[in-house]
Amino acid sequence: MNIAVVGGSTCLKKYYQIAEKLGELIARNGWILICGGGPGVMEAACRGAKNKRGLTVGILPSYDGKEANNYLDVKIPTGLGFIRNTLVVRAADYIVAVSGKYGTLSEIGFALSEGKKVIGIGSWQIEGVKEAATPEQAVEVIKEDVK
Amino acid sequence: MNIAVVGGSTCLKKYYQIAEKLGELIARNGWILICGGGPGVMEAACRGAKNKRGLTVGILPSYDGKEANNYLDVKIPTGLGFIRNTLVVRAADYIVAVSGKYGTLSEIGFALSEGKKVIGIGSWQIEGVKEAATPEQAVEVIKEDVK
Amino acid sequence: MNIAVVGGSTCLKKYYQIAEKLGELIARNGWILICGGGPGVMEAACRGAKNKRGLTVGILPSYDGKEANNYLDVKIPTGLGFIRNTLVVRAADYIVAVSGKYGTLSEIGFALSEGKKVIGIGSWQIEGVKEAATPEQAVEVIKEDVK
Amino acid sequence: MNIAVVGGSTCLKKYYQIAEKLGELIARNGWILICGGGPGVMEAACRGAKNKRGLTVGILPSYDGKEANNYLDVKIPTGLGFIRNTLVVRAADYIVAVSGKYGTLSEIGFALSEGKKVIGIGSWQIEGVKEAATPEQAVEVIKEDVK
Repeated sequence: MNIAVVGGSTCLKKYYQIAEKLGELIARNGWILICGGGPGVMEAACRGAKNKRGLTVGILPSYDGKEANNYLDVKIPTGLGFIRNTLVVRAADYIVAVSGKYGTLSEIGFALSEGKKVIGIGSWQIEGVKEAATPEQAVEVIKEDVK
Repeated sequence: MNIAVVGGSTCLKKYYQIAEKLGELIARNGWILICGGGPGVMEAACRGAKNKRGLTVGILPSYDGKEANNYLDVKIPTGLGFIRNTLVVRAADYIVAVSGKYGTLSEIGFALSEGKKVIGIGSWQIEGVKEAATPEQAVEVIKEDVK
Repeated sequence: MNIAVVGGSTCLKKYYQIAEKLGELIARNGWILICGGGPGVMEAACRGAKNKRGLTVGILPSYDGKEANNYLDVKIPTGLGFIRNTLVVRAADYIVAVSGKYGTLSEIGFALSEGKKVIGIGSWQIEGVKEAATPEQAVEVIKEDVK
Repeated sequence: MNIAVVGGSTCLKKYYQIAEKLGELIARNGWILICGGGPGVMEAACRGAKNKRGLTVGILPSYDGKEANNYLDVKIPTGLGFIRNTLVVRAADYIVAVSGKYGTLSEIGFALSEGKKVIGIGSWQIEGVKEAATPEQAVEVIKEDVK
């Protein structure tokens, strides 16, 4: 199962830690981490996943993938700029948004318009997004839903 | 200049009328109307633009364009589903959001993340979106900005 | 009906004249000309179509459309680079290839893989492409097929 | 490094075996195998790579990835249909085409238009494609080029 973690390419330390923990939990559950491949929340989640020997995939905006963070097993450069956001969502079974700005908003809107479940941690407050207070809670929401 | 009108494929009569008026104003200013090509707000804007002999373009989600409204000069079927939303935004110099749901939210988020100006009429209240009360006001915002 | 004319962004004078004539015929038949919006064969076809008051649409590779030729009614910048080739094909009911290099080859391959009819004038000799000696013949092939 | 193997979703047994061997060699060199994720040549290459504990990625045409072969570590459903071909190419450092029909032709054309190296084994004979007689030879071409 693919879990997308979306969020800002810059973020507060607090959200970096949350995303890192989230990545760990994703890996521990045997899920694959899909993200935009960049720094900030994406890097944190990948780092967490790699701490637990998870598999990490970055769908990157540039042609050459030079913005890739250091914790990616698979780099998918696209040359699509922010349109790659839609591919992160399409590739995912669930989307967890951690903090984030307009790019994250576009992913939330796109995910909801495609009928996908979105869990938010300190992210945009949008009707339809399931709020979670912690990474553990976000993962519980997914596990409940999969049942 | 290309002006995108985005909004729900279903909408209240009130917003249909607003979008129709907006389409008229876009045409009168000699601008090209870009939209997702479907019903609701998109249809209304196209209808308005055609009332004033404007040029209307629909970037459609399906392969065959069968969801096209009846007021399109140019139909661009894409087979991309909602990813076509990103192309509507990329094609536009300005984006006006009228009402709308998650698809519209994705377009607002995407437009702002790409640094494009978004004007909202009864749409999502998102920081960075310039609110307008009427189609006339929305057009004024554009004209001021172009100067 | 949308007819795509695809071909090199540079071309021999001979093919420029062929593409221009083709654009004229497309306009005369009341069809819309879709192309990649650039110079060379694309420009020639647009110029021909505008000579006969046709409608021309360019789906452009860049974000800002600065490579647009001077004969486009509708400019659709995409920021997709050569991926925009696939949108030119998706938007078209028929594809006419005039001369052309690798970009044109990708369009021919993509069109045939999507089951669309491709007519070639001095272009890649690929099984499945209907060869035409002149623009008039290419248009005849389309008219016969539409019947 | 990402190596794309492209080719038909159905293929002669001969090409299945070639693609399987190619997948093995890709894995042995520590490269990641990128493909369209489906049956035929794609399946064969993935199977070969998994035989040697390589990492396999499928960029799939459907929304739900149901056409995925059984040897994929990472499934990336896109909902793009054959447009996903362009993403396979964009993600790859080198492209090896084994046999194949129009979809493969579109990938060859697209890759060459983006300036990427393409090696062909029993595939389309297109100027610019480096022909290889065997998977071993194809891998040699890549290794020589990387130096």
